[in-house]
Amino acid sequence: MRVKRMSGVLCPVITPFREDLSPDAALLGAQCRWLLAQGVGLAVFGTNSEANSLSVDEKTTLLHALVEQGIDVRRMMPGTGCCALSDTVALTRTAVTLDCAGVLMLPPFYYKTVSDEGLFAYFSEVIQRVADSRLSIYLYHIPPVAQVGLSPELIERLVKTYPDTIAGIKDSSGDWSYAQALLNREWDNFRVFVGSETLLLQNMRAGGAGCISAMANVNPAAINALFELWQAKDAADAQQSLTDLRAIVQRQPMIPALKSIVAQFSNRPEWRRVRPPLAELNAAQRESLLDALQQTGFDMPGLPAA
Amino acid sequence: MRVKRMSGVLCPVITPFREDLSPDAALLGAQCRWLLAQGVGLAVFGTNSEANSLSVDEKTTLLHALVEQGIDVRRMMPGTGCCALSDTVALTRTAVTLDCAGVLMLPPFYYKTVSDEGLFAYFSEVIQRVADSRLSIYLYHIPPVAQVGLSPELIERLVKTYPDTIAGIKDSSGDWSYAQALLNREWDNFRVFVGSETLLLQNMRAGGAGCISAMANVNPAAINALFELWQAKDAADAQQSLTDLRAIVQRQPMIPALKSIVAQFSNRPEWRRVRPPLAELNAAQRESLLDALQQTGFDMPGLPAA
Repeated sequence: MRVKRMSGVLCPVITPFREDLSPDAALLGAQCRWLLAQGVGLAVFGTNSEANSLSVDEKTTLLHALVEQGIDVRRMMPGTGCCALSDTVALTRTAVTLDCAGVLMLPPFYYKTVSDEGLFAYFSEVIQRVADSRLSIYLYHIPPVAQVGLSPELIERLVKTYPDTIAGIKDSSGDWSYAQALLNREWDNFRVFVGSETLLLQNMRAGGAGCISAMANVNPAAINALFELWQAKDAADAQQSLTDLRAIVQRQPMIPALKSIVAQFSNRPEWRRVRPPLAELNAAQRESLLDALQQTGFDMPGLPAA
Repeated sequence: MRVKRMSGVLCPVITPFREDLSPDAALLGAQCRWLLAQGVGLAVFGTNSEANSLSVDEKTTLLHALVEQGIDVRRMMPGTGCCALSDTVALTRTAVTLDCAGVLMLPPFYYKTVSDEGLFAYFSEVIQRVADSRLSIYLYHIPPVAQVGLSPELIERLVKTYPDTIAGIKDSSGDWSYAQALLNREWDNFRVFVGSETLLLQNMRAGGAGCISAMANVNPAAINALFELWQAKDAADAQQSLTDLRAIVQRQPMIPALKSIVAQFSNRPEWRRVRPPLAELNAAQRESLLDALQQTGFDMPGLPAA
């Protein structure tokens, strides 16, 4: 059996916290419904979701809650890669059992300078332990954060050994030559997502599958429009607009900046909360960010508001 | 209440795995008893224990099993620092409830370039959520692996805010000037452990508390002897011997090397198993390591053997 593979724009959905820093499943569900309506898929439990600040139990509970709220599992690619083999297996199994379209899998990221042999053994163990033909893995290459990256040789070995399971990659290296090198290998139906919408047009022109980007939390419709219309005449202009908007947001630390924006436009200050070790933007940072956005005419129409 | 603080040589005990890669609690217990008999304490769930390749549930089960086997909790400093606040709180609470003498706490290590403000908030949340006056935290500074380090300014703020709880640090930076800088601050009863026995004599001369070192897995009695007799005339020679032995082992990746040595001297090949992403030494690496050790007359007397 070959599982249908994903494409398009996916959002690493930011995670709302209650005052006691427990995740707010109802608010997350409402946000996911809005994002789906904007045309983007749901890469919940990504880096920008503070997924690595959540326990496996917390993620399992959230995933079940989203499904119970009727969120379309066929548009979900939850992040399931943890440091511990046992954690990754448990969370991946939950996602597959719930019939999620795919999973986004970090390599184990505590131990550094590990060998390709060790990483291959790790992904092999996960696949064999989950043992479900519905499993569709999108590898997650993000060396600036995980520090542990995925070499093209390792990916090739995984693709050749598990052609039905290794479905693609999210490349958050920021280094276009890496994505290009993977596309050049022309593995059958292998989906290359870039980790930033600033590379979306370039990726589509090179035969890529889309992007999975933090900015889809605040600018989903416009990013999705470029994905849909990348062959249109004005695509380069659309790309430039996306890139310009990101530059404004990136002046602040990304995750608290996204949360501040959603808090502002939903009139729900609770969205600003982050789990330590992250810290909220201070008032001056927030003001600077929101002022700069206002000058561009930025808006988030239809966002579920308090 | 002020908890009695630890000193001496502690061992980040390697973790034995069964064929299915589940932890073997009975074999770990036997190893811990041997280590205690050699005079070293037990920093179970350290980096060299592959602790970050174990789930919180697995570590909780192991810790209960060790206590049930009668391992002295007052000589235990389990590692409890995870990426997720909720995981760190749960595991720390277990250790404190079992009356462990201390815990060794990594900073959350997924998100990089986090602020001291965010790290302070993280440790504060852990302390306030565990809410137990028996809690005694030894911070774990290991930037080569965790990438997230602990600045002296952050530590000072923690020490001043939680003087009864922040008991000391394990410095695995490999940079003596860092340990020296902390000792220079002369915080009341703050315990500085170096992360390698190669710096043990230097640390003791500067007023440090001892070391927590991988090599204590294979050379515990000699390392402990230097701790006990660091003021003896021949201490520098003893230090040189320890340093020379480590240099031999370090020619191979440390964790699989330690496991190969214990496997050899206990006649239990199962000790060689590691969890991916780590990989066992191959036959040539193993032979080279064991040959080099044999030439020094190295032995592990009394090691529980098959």
